[in-house]
Amino acid sequence: MILTVTLNAALDVTYRVDELRPQQTHRVSSVVTRAGGKGVNVAAVLTQIREPVVATGLVGGPTGEQIRHRLAAARIADSFVPVAADSRRTLVVADRTGATGFWEPGPPVTAEEWSAFVARFRGLATVSRAVVLSGSLPAGVPADAYAELVTIARELAVPSIVDAEGTALAAALDARPDVVKPNAHELASVTGGTAPDTVTEVLAAAEALRTRGAGAVVASRGADGLVAATPDGAYRAAPPAAVTGNPTGAGDAAVAALARGLAYRTGWPATLTDAVALSAAAVAAPEAGQVDGREYDRLRKIITVETVTE
Amino acid sequence: MILTVTLNAALDVTYRVDELRPQQTHRVSSVVTRAGGKGVNVAAVLTQIREPVVATGLVGGPTGEQIRHRLAAARIADSFVPVAADSRRTLVVADRTGATGFWEPGPPVTAEEWSAFVARFRGLATVSRAVVLSGSLPAGVPADAYAELVTIARELAVPSIVDAEGTALAAALDARPDVVKPNAHELASVTGGTAPDTVTEVLAAAEALRTRGAGAVVASRGADGLVAATPDGAYRAAPPAAVTGNPTGAGDAAVAALARGLAYRTGWPATLTDAVALSAAAVAAPEAGQVDGREYDRLRKIITVETVTE
Repeated sequence: MILTVTLNAALDVTYRVDELRPQQTHRVSSVVTRAGGKGVNVAAVLTQIREPVVATGLVGGPTGEQIRHRLAAARIADSFVPVAADSRRTLVVADRTGATGFWEPGPPVTAEEWSAFVARFRGLATVSRAVVLSGSLPAGVPADAYAELVTIARELAVPSIVDAEGTALAAALDARPDVVKPNAHELASVTGGTAPDTVTEVLAAAEALRTRGAGAVVASRGADGLVAATPDGAYRAAPPAAVTGNPTGAGDAAVAALARGLAYRTGWPATLTDAVALSAAAVAAPEAGQVDGREYDRLRKIITVETVTE
Repeated sequence: MILTVTLNAALDVTYRVDELRPQQTHRVSSVVTRAGGKGVNVAAVLTQIREPVVATGLVGGPTGEQIRHRLAAARIADSFVPVAADSRRTLVVADRTGATGFWEPGPPVTAEEWSAFVARFRGLATVSRAVVLSGSLPAGVPADAYAELVTIARELAVPSIVDAEGTALAAALDARPDVVKPNAHELASVTGGTAPDTVTEVLAAAEALRTRGAGAVVASRGADGLVAATPDGAYRAAPPAAVTGNPTGAGDAAVAALARGLAYRTGWPATLTDAVALSAAAVAAPEAGQVDGREYDRLRKIITVETVTE
């Protein structure tokens, strides 16, 4: 199985209103809730493509209970560790124009709760083919949390993927994760400077992260697909045409494919093809954590991967 | 004791953000939750002025559990009846400019749940000195719900106050509640036409509601205080100067005072003085359901009530 870690899991709530007008009162016509957080989205995608997966992380309070109910409803195997504080919500207010987001702060985590989580992680990782560490860290979790978990996975000879940014990602690199999957903005959060734009710029930033410890760096470039700096060389993979839809969760779908590639030691070209196809199939599906199965089957036959000579 | 009824209870949530900008994502710096709904606010005020009170109504699901926790934390006696569906939240996003509100729809209520509530109400009303029926009706509750409850109270010789609007208020009038407390907008929701503005216009609308069945009509006029059409004559009561602060909950504080006046059969001038003072003391307190005790003590000594000759 694949293990996903979501330390800052959330209840994702969507309010539909006619038109958002500041300083006015709105009647919400519908309220939709789902379990969220990047690692949960990865687990949702793997569950849909029938890849055995267990979702762990930290949840607490009444919001944590609601997250667990939603995981059960989506048939995602749940091995979350309880914390005392209430889990966060993310609220999206959707109107005719677009979406307005409100991110609650995550629950504070105590040292004892973190220790309990590390013990749980060690046990689950022992029986995993790959571990995925995704998203931000709640208050109270050490800044080098991902480094600690990557080190445990390495001791157990289990490959690891980190999808994070800023200090959480930078600290993780010290423990030499097998793969990291930053977007351009997240690359810049570690290398400094402005976000890289061209393939050459992205590959240079990716190589900088490899120098700092990452085994491979798979950089996501939105509708332009993926660029990968790996021990076997550099690659570029892109869908034949831009897919329209909801880009939320596209990065998480790519991570799901990368985790499966790591778990079965698939070569880079096949793994990257799968990652681009699954990512585009997530864009084509209406909700984060969902993939359009037809689009996935169609795309993975026609995506091409090219070697990039630096 | 006084009994308050909140059929559409809510978890009132306040998000603080720097500046609300549509189509952007915001980090929420603080999340504050409290039990809400007009009847709950009345119970909170009565609890603060040490008047024995029990809050009943309908709550359900995980949000209902959170409402009950907040009631317990505020030491408000809770006799809510459970429903299967999840209670609603009201969300206020507060920024530097002001407040933006999002009202979730209430939970649907089944016929069996409504019957269970009516039975609970009858039992509680038997031992009450006054009953307060406040706020909107959730889906599934009959449109004449307040008329049914007022009729039960009348059979038990317990006086009743209704604070509602539109069809819920109009239907309640048929059962002859002892007092209704509309604001200008709520008066117009029954009489039709534009909201009455001057004292003469408000009194005319109030008399129209008395003709339709209300024993007395106490109309709230914001910072201008109250105008009352009663069997003993018409009155006007106003604070000596406008109180600055948060007007949310000022009407509920006035209802709390009216309920106490009914419970102890205090005469109209004293009851109206108390209602204006408690309402202004609620404006002076930062949160809905709270009153500023010092302001209350100061104001109730200096408010004057005048008889209005029509």
